[in-house]
Amino acid sequence: MNTHTAQDTPFIPAPRITTVAGYLLARLAEAGVISVFGVPGDDNLPILDAIAARPGLAWIGMATEQGAGYAADSYARQRGLGAVVTTFGVGELSAANAIAGACAESVPVVHIVGTPALEARETGARLHHNLPGADYGHFARMAAEVTAAQADLRAVTAPEQIDRVLGTALATSRPVYLTIPADVAGLPVLAPAGPLSRAVPEPDPAVVAAFTGHARRVLAVADSASLLAGHLAARHRVTAQVRDLAVAGNLPVAVLSVAKGDFPESDPRFAGLYAGPASAKRARVAVEDADVLITAGVTLADTVLGGAHQLPARRRIDLAPEQASIDGTVYPGIGLRQSLAVLAAAVRSMPPRAGLADLPPFETPAEARGGPLTQAGLWARVQEFLRPGDLLIADQGTAFDSAAGLPLPDGAQLIGQPLWASTGWSVPAALGASLAAPDRRVVVVADDGAMQQAAAELGTLLGQGLAPVIVVASNGGYTTERAIGRPGAGYHQIPVWVWTELPAAVGPATSPVALRAVTSHELAWALAAAGSHAAAGRPVLIEAVLAGDAPLLLQDLTRALAASARQ
Amino acid sequence: MNTHTAQDTPFIPAPRITTVAGYLLARLAEAGVISVFGVPGDDNLPILDAIAARPGLAWIGMATEQGAGYAADSYARQRGLGAVVTTFGVGELSAANAIAGACAESVPVVHIVGTPALEARETGARLHHNLPGADYGHFARMAAEVTAAQADLRAVTAPEQIDRVLGTALATSRPVYLTIPADVAGLPVLAPAGPLSRAVPEPDPAVVAAFTGHARRVLAVADSASLLAGHLAARHRVTAQVRDLAVAGNLPVAVLSVAKGDFPESDPRFAGLYAGPASAKRARVAVEDADVLITAGVTLADTVLGGAHQLPARRRIDLAPEQASIDGTVYPGIGLRQSLAVLAAAVRSMPPRAGLADLPPFETPAEARGGPLTQAGLWARVQEFLRPGDLLIADQGTAFDSAAGLPLPDGAQLIGQPLWASTGWSVPAALGASLAAPDRRVVVVADDGAMQQAAAELGTLLGQGLAPVIVVASNGGYTTERAIGRPGAGYHQIPVWVWTELPAAVGPATSPVALRAVTSHELAWALAAAGSHAAAGRPVLIEAVLAGDAPLLLQDLTRALAASARQ
Repeated sequence: MNTHTAQDTPFIPAPRITTVAGYLLARLAEAGVISVFGVPGDDNLPILDAIAARPGLAWIGMATEQGAGYAADSYARQRGLGAVVTTFGVGELSAANAIAGACAESVPVVHIVGTPALEARETGARLHHNLPGADYGHFARMAAEVTAAQADLRAVTAPEQIDRVLGTALATSRPVYLTIPADVAGLPVLAPAGPLSRAVPEPDPAVVAAFTGHARRVLAVADSASLLAGHLAARHRVTAQVRDLAVAGNLPVAVLSVAKGDFPESDPRFAGLYAGPASAKRARVAVEDADVLITAGVTLADTVLGGAHQLPARRRIDLAPEQASIDGTVYPGIGLRQSLAVLAAAVRSMPPRAGLADLPPFETPAEARGGPLTQAGLWARVQEFLRPGDLLIADQGTAFDSAAGLPLPDGAQLIGQPLWASTGWSVPAALGASLAAPDRRVVVVADDGAMQQAAAELGTLLGQGLAPVIVVASNGGYTTERAIGRPGAGYHQIPVWVWTELPAAVGPATSPVALRAVTSHELAWALAAAGSHAAAGRPVLIEAVLAGDAPLLLQDLTRALAASARQ
Repeated sequence: MNTHTAQDTPFIPAPRITTVAGYLLARLAEAGVISVFGVPGDDNLPILDAIAARPGLAWIGMATEQGAGYAADSYARQRGLGAVVTTFGVGELSAANAIAGACAESVPVVHIVGTPALEARETGARLHHNLPGADYGHFARMAAEVTAAQADLRAVTAPEQIDRVLGTALATSRPVYLTIPADVAGLPVLAPAGPLSRAVPEPDPAVVAAFTGHARRVLAVADSASLLAGHLAARHRVTAQVRDLAVAGNLPVAVLSVAKGDFPESDPRFAGLYAGPASAKRARVAVEDADVLITAGVTLADTVLGGAHQLPARRRIDLAPEQASIDGTVYPGIGLRQSLAVLAAAVRSMPPRAGLADLPPFETPAEARGGPLTQAGLWARVQEFLRPGDLLIADQGTAFDSAAGLPLPDGAQLIGQPLWASTGWSVPAALGASLAAPDRRVVVVADDGAMQQAAAELGTLLGQGLAPVIVVASNGGYTTERAIGRPGAGYHQIPVWVWTELPAAVGPATSPVALRAVTSHELAWALAAAGSHAAAGRPVLIEAVLAGDAPLLLQDLTRALAASARQ
C-alpha cells in the first residue's frame, strides 16, 4: 500500500509531450468537439491518424467535403464548436461554400487542412492538388476571405497559433482556417499546460456608463419597448439573458427566423416571427409600433426581413456581440452579455408600460385537413408531429420559409441557413446535429431539389446508424426560383427520382423505412409510423408528394426579392 | 417580285442590338458551345432566361455546381470551350474546386456568375448569399486565384470585356470568370460585328532564328532523339503537329498519362506510357536513354511521373504553349505550333538515327482469366471491351492509374484529372463528354468512393437520356489512400451501397440496366450486354466487385508518393 499523499510529496507534473495534431485535438476536445467530420486525402492522413489514436474522438468520414463542412456547421450550432478536416486544394475548395456559409451565419467551424510536406514544397516540387507552378498559397489566400483567423502551423509556434485561432473562433463565432503540412502534424510540442483562454477584453467603464445613461434616458420616456432576437444571441450563448431582459421589463419578444426556438414560444411575452412585410400582425405590431425596439444579436438580410433591408422602428437600441448602439450612437467593446444586463437593470427600475396586453393575438394556425397534399397541409402535419425538444432542420427554399411560420413546442428549435441560403444543407446538417445532440429527435424537411444535392450524404447519415425523420417535399423542381422567375421555364425542372427506393440503395445496413404520402391523411399516418420507427432507432424517409403550390410566406417573400433582383 | 439585287442597292447591315447576356452567349456559340451547365439561383435567372431564348443552345441543369463545373471541364476538352453558370456566393463557391481543377489541368472553362443587382448593392443592402457587411467582392477575389482573367460586366464595356476574357480562355486554355449583375444581364449592347479575335502575337523573328539554330546544333550531334507528349499539345490543338514531327524524324513517342490517346498507339513510333519510375521498359528507354528528349506540352507533376518531380533526360528541348527552351535557355513567345514546325524541319533534313528499332518491345498485356475479379482482371476485361473512338473516363484513384496502363485502340482517348486529382469527377465528366461528342461511346470506370460522391449527378446524367457504360469498381473504400497510409485504418471505409438499385432510384425514366459481376467471366458477360444496351440508347451501370488488391501501377506510384508525403 502506498502511504504517500499529496501532503508528503508535492506533485510537480512533468511537462507532457504531444504532437502538433495532438495539441489541436486536445484543444478541440476541451471545447466540446468529440466528432470531427471530413474526407481522407493523401495530405491529411497524418491528421486522421492522430484522430484515430485519440480515445473519445470520433472520425466521421463523409462522402463530400461540402457535406462535411455542413455537418460541422450544424454540430457547432449545438456544441459551440465544430471541426472539419480536408486535404489541400481539391478537398478544401470543395468545402469553400460550407465554410463561407459558416461565416455568413456566424458559426465557429475550424477548417483543418492537411497540406503537402514542407520538404517537398521547399524543393519547389510540382505536386498534384496544386495549380501549375510552385506557389502553394492560392487556397490559403482564398480561405482568408471567408474565415476570421488563419495559421499555417509549424512545430515551434503551433501551440500559440492554435490557441490564437481557436480563441478567435470562440470569441467571434466565426470559422477559422488551420493548415498543417504532412510533415508537421506529427512533430512534438508541449501539451497544453492550462485551459484555452477565453478571456474577453473588458469594455471601457466610461463607455459602459455612457451607454447605461443613454439607454435609461431613452427607455424612461418610452411608452412601450419590444425586443427582437436574432441568431447571434444563441451563437454567443445569451438566450437566457435575453429572456431575463424580457421578464425584467415584461417586454414583447419577436424573433427572426434565424432565432426561431431561441425564445420559448409558450411565454406570454412571445410575439411571434418577425419577417418584415411578410410578418403576421402580432409580430409586426410588436416590432414596428414599439416606441423603442431593442434588437439582440440581429444581423439584417433581405431573406429574414421579407425582402426589406431595414427595420422600420422608431427608436432603436441595438445590442451586438462587440458593440451596442442607440439610434446610431455606437458604444464600442460592449458584449451582448453586458449590454443585456445593463438593459435588464434599466427596465426593472421603471414603471410597467403598455404594450404586451395590446398586442394582437396569434393567428390560429391552419388545421390539417384531408384531400391531396398542399403546402399548407404538409406543414400542418409537420406541426402536429413536432414535440418539445425536437430539432427541426429545414432546407433553404420552401422548407425553411414554411418552417419559420410554425409555432414551436418549448425546447424545440428550427435550424436552417437563411442568410447564406445554400440548398442541400439539411441532410449533412441533420448528421451533424444528431451526433452533437444524440438525445434530441431530428426532423428534416427538404425540397426534392435540395434532397437530390444531398443524396451522397444521405448514405453517410444512414451509414452512421442515425435515425432522423426525413420528409422530402416532392414538387419536381426549384419552387423558390419558380416563385421568383418564370414559373414555366424548363430550368426549374429536376430529374424524377424514386424517393422510396433511395434509402435502401444508399443505406441498406440500417433497414431504413421509406414511405410515400400523396394525401394529407397519408402524411399523418406516415409521420405517426415514422415517430415509432425513429424512437426504435430506424431512420425514415417520407416522400410527401405536393400539388405544387408555393407556401404563403414564400409567396410574400419572393415577391419582394424578385422586385429587388430584377430592378 | 422584288427585282432589287445586291448590285442595285449595296447592303449596309443595321447595327444589331442584343443584350449583355445575349452578347456573351453569341460568343460562346461562335466558339462551339451549344450546351451550358449550371444550377439555377435567384441572381442568375436573367442569364438562364437568355439561354432559354437562344435557339440551338441547351441548358443542362445539374444537381450541384461542382458537377456542373466538372461537366463543363470535360465538355471543353472535347469542344475547345465550356461554360458553367452559377449564382453569387453559394453557387460559385460550390464550383470552386471544379474551376481550380480546370486551371490545374489547363482547360478553358468560362465561369459565369449571376450577382445581385447593382441597384441593391449601391444602397449597401444586406443581401443573402453574402458575408455580413456590404463588401460584395469576397468571391471575385477568391476566383482571381484560380482563373486567368476576370470581368464584372457593365453594359457600356461588356462587349470588349467579354471578348478580352474569352480570348484569354482560348489563348491560354485556362478558366476565366465573368460576373453579371442581375440588372445588367438584360441591358442592350451592340451584337458582335465580327468574329472573336483569336490573334496570337507573332514571336520575335530573331528569337525564332536563335531557337532554330540552337535546336539544329543540338539535334545534329545527337545519336538519338525521342518525343514525350503532354496534355497541352491536345489543349492547344497541335497533336497533328506532334505526329508530323515524329514522322519527320522517325522519333519514338512516349506519352504522359494526361495525354493517353493523343498519339495513335498503332503507330510503330509509339513508345508507350511514360510514368517515371513506374514506366514499362520501352517507354523508360525511349525517354531516359535518348540523347535529346523533346517534350511537347508537358507539365510535370508527381502524379504523372510516378512520384518523381523531374525528367531524368540528358538533353532537353521543351516546347510549351508560350515559349520553347533548350537545356534551360528560354526562347520566349514561341508557341507550340511554331516550335513543332521548326523542329520538324530540323529533323527532316538530318540523317536517320538509331533509336526506334532498339526500343524494347511492349510487354504483352495481361490476358483475362476466370476466377474472382482482381484489379488485373477488371482492366483486362475493360481493355477487351474498348473499341476505336471510345472515350474512356477514369476517376482519380485506382481507376485512372490503371486505365493509363491500357493499350488504347486508335481514336480512343483516356480522360481523367491526374494533375488536380479530385475524386468524383468522372460521372459529371461523362455527362459533359457525352453532350460534347454525341457520336462517341463513353465508358466510365470509377471507384465506389468516387461514385458515391457523384451519386446526385448520376441522376442528372440519366435524366438527360444519355447512355454511357459505367463500371463501379467496388472495393469498399479509398484504395489509393489505403496504399499510401495505414491500409487497416477505419477512415478508409465508406458506407455500403446497393449499386444495382441506385440507377432505378435516381434515373427511372431511362430504364437503366444495372448488373453485378463478382468474377472475371461475369464481368465479360456484363460488358458484352452493356455494349448492346448502350448502342440501343440504354445506360448501364455495372458493379464490379473486387477482391481488394491495389493495381500494380498504383502500388509503384503510391510508394513514391508516400515517401514524399511522409518525409
